[in-house]
Amino acid sequence: MREIYLDNSATTRVLPEAADAAYRAMTVDYGNPSSLHKKGLEAEQVMEQARKSVASALGAEAEGLVFTSGGTEANNLAVIGTAQARRKRGDKVVVSAYEHDSVLAAAKYLEELGFSVTYLAPDKRGRIAPEAVSAAVDGKTVLVSVMLVNNEIGAVNDIEALVRAAKAANPDTAFHTDAVQAFGKLPFSAKKLGADLVTVTAHKIGGPKGVGALWMKKGARVCARELGGEQERRIRGGTEASPLIAAFGVAAEHAALELPRFTALTKELSAAMERELCGMEGVVRNSPEDALPAIMNVSVLGIRSEIMLHYLEARGIYVSSGSACAKGAASHVLAAMGYDRARMDSALRVSFGRENTAEDVTELMRAIRDAQRELCR
Amino acid sequence: MREIYLDNSATTRVLPEAADAAYRAMTVDYGNPSSLHKKGLEAEQVMEQARKSVASALGAEAEGLVFTSGGTEANNLAVIGTAQARRKRGDKVVVSAYEHDSVLAAAKYLEELGFSVTYLAPDKRGRIAPEAVSAAVDGKTVLVSVMLVNNEIGAVNDIEALVRAAKAANPDTAFHTDAVQAFGKLPFSAKKLGADLVTVTAHKIGGPKGVGALWMKKGARVCARELGGEQERRIRGGTEASPLIAAFGVAAEHAALELPRFTALTKELSAAMERELCGMEGVVRNSPEDALPAIMNVSVLGIRSEIMLHYLEARGIYVSSGSACAKGAASHVLAAMGYDRARMDSALRVSFGRENTAEDVTELMRAIRDAQRELCR
Repeated sequence: MREIYLDNSATTRVLPEAADAAYRAMTVDYGNPSSLHKKGLEAEQVMEQARKSVASALGAEAEGLVFTSGGTEANNLAVIGTAQARRKRGDKVVVSAYEHDSVLAAAKYLEELGFSVTYLAPDKRGRIAPEAVSAAVDGKTVLVSVMLVNNEIGAVNDIEALVRAAKAANPDTAFHTDAVQAFGKLPFSAKKLGADLVTVTAHKIGGPKGVGALWMKKGARVCARELGGEQERRIRGGTEASPLIAAFGVAAEHAALELPRFTALTKELSAAMERELCGMEGVVRNSPEDALPAIMNVSVLGIRSEIMLHYLEARGIYVSSGSACAKGAASHVLAAMGYDRARMDSALRVSFGRENTAEDVTELMRAIRDAQRELCR
Repeated sequence: MREIYLDNSATTRVLPEAADAAYRAMTVDYGNPSSLHKKGLEAEQVMEQARKSVASALGAEAEGLVFTSGGTEANNLAVIGTAQARRKRGDKVVVSAYEHDSVLAAAKYLEELGFSVTYLAPDKRGRIAPEAVSAAVDGKTVLVSVMLVNNEIGAVNDIEALVRAAKAANPDTAFHTDAVQAFGKLPFSAKKLGADLVTVTAHKIGGPKGVGALWMKKGARVCARELGGEQERRIRGGTEASPLIAAFGVAAEHAALELPRFTALTKELSAAMERELCGMEGVVRNSPEDALPAIMNVSVLGIRSEIMLHYLEARGIYVSSGSACAKGAASHVLAAMGYDRARMDSALRVSFGRENTAEDVTELMRAIRDAQRELCR
């Protein structure tokens, strides 16, 4: 049976070129980047080349990039690390209500430390409004964190406008954006966004799981959370995961080069899906119209997500009910959008990747129609 | 020029079989272990197989093993996470003065949080005495952390005796041991040690950089530090680094199988080095006599470590001056041993791995003798 993998926002197959780079770093340039001898230097050079590639794909200078073990660590470092570093300036933090778990859990942790956190709800189009940021930020606000692309519905926030709103209300506020689902899928430049901190990760763009990065604008300060060792300018201790970092560099370079093709492809696929949806009853679209084309969230009313997941799986089609990290729990994103229970319980996230074809969409939609016939009554 | 890599305690070349496992997990079993469909399940199965392999090599049950991004994260989680989880029971922590930076930095962080930390100095043989632990632990002590094998001098602590001493003074105290330099190099069983928490990592035993684990005895509790997501029983959030975890499993299995051969080989190599040292003037051994044979720390008096490092490097021989993580800073381990400046400034750590031969030792010692002739005056 042919496999149709439509869960590319959960993770992606690693590009062969990226996997080759990791392999080489494991078996040839295997030194410890912190070692003072040539084997260390070689490993360090591989890592610094990757830093340049990732930074360049991000439209930012390499000096600001700190490698982490993934998006979760980078988000934790950005949110908790920034708030702790700015504790003396204030005790308020503003985040959107539909952030990834790693931002929400970090915010919750800050509440335990005595910070007060404001959660901003998205508007009907799934976006955080600049006015909402303006209203929430005051002189005591040390950090605002709003994601660039929402991981479940693909809504794209206008981070530039949100940064302007935040800085107008308090020029001293730091701004973080989780760009994990945007990186390599949407043309943007960290510098142009104006955010002080930007999170990216490798495994959503054909790189391996286990490595991500936090880009920090010059002057941004965070309290380190991985303690010990002089690595990553003392911002992130621990022996660097050089094989994964090498692969991340290759994947980022590839994603930057392929971005126009990726955009055209995902636009075509989401448009094809949209066309098929038009003629179908009982299926509603949860992604806003101007969402990232790579993410299409729909609800097939009357069929619970997990039932549909397994029905599709039996045909070799892989989608998700929401974020993989939540392991099937009810979606806080759809709840924040104000959708009712029936819609939340039947939600499917279809996420396209570089290897998908129009045929995949046809197969998916045929299977959904079959499911409606067989499972609905 | 033949490369002679004698820095295996900094990091090791990844075993081809382990690198192959990582490659496969990147390109074939590439699903997100948290995904609910078959691709997720396949990735989860690979990960759970690796968990069994690592736990088995550690002589412990797989349920207690939490994968992390490496030794640093595992040590941070053990020290900070345990102290925070036990905050209500007391505010004292005991660590040895020659722990790895990731334990010492964690202890320092606890001091900032209001904990009081006692630092135990090693005795003349480089070991932490049970009496020192007994004297330091009281009813307010929530955690004792002493490493199994010291990373710079190879001293081996009698963790069983130290656990007994700690628990006799306060049965409620948790005991953590950083076994990074012992795992796969010394026969031991986590269960028999009696420690509540044990840190291990992959890249010292032919696995890749970027993955480690904290083994927790049943009932041991820590506050999570990577927040968000349901992974690793909520103790460690974030998408699991499944390619690295797969490789870790293979490396651990291999290390366990090869342990007798590894022990015999490193005993032979350290004995050969010891014999050559006997006939040399101006070289003193910093490793205790009963150290782990894989680590030989010596000082070539009168030649600064970095000068010697580069002299040897020019001959294709790679050793270190101390821990790679400290990037050449003066060794806190040798300072804790009470060695004088001259000895600290000329220290070399030679660390053997599975690929070294007697010829490597001959070459190293010849080079050191040449250096003495050419550089000493």
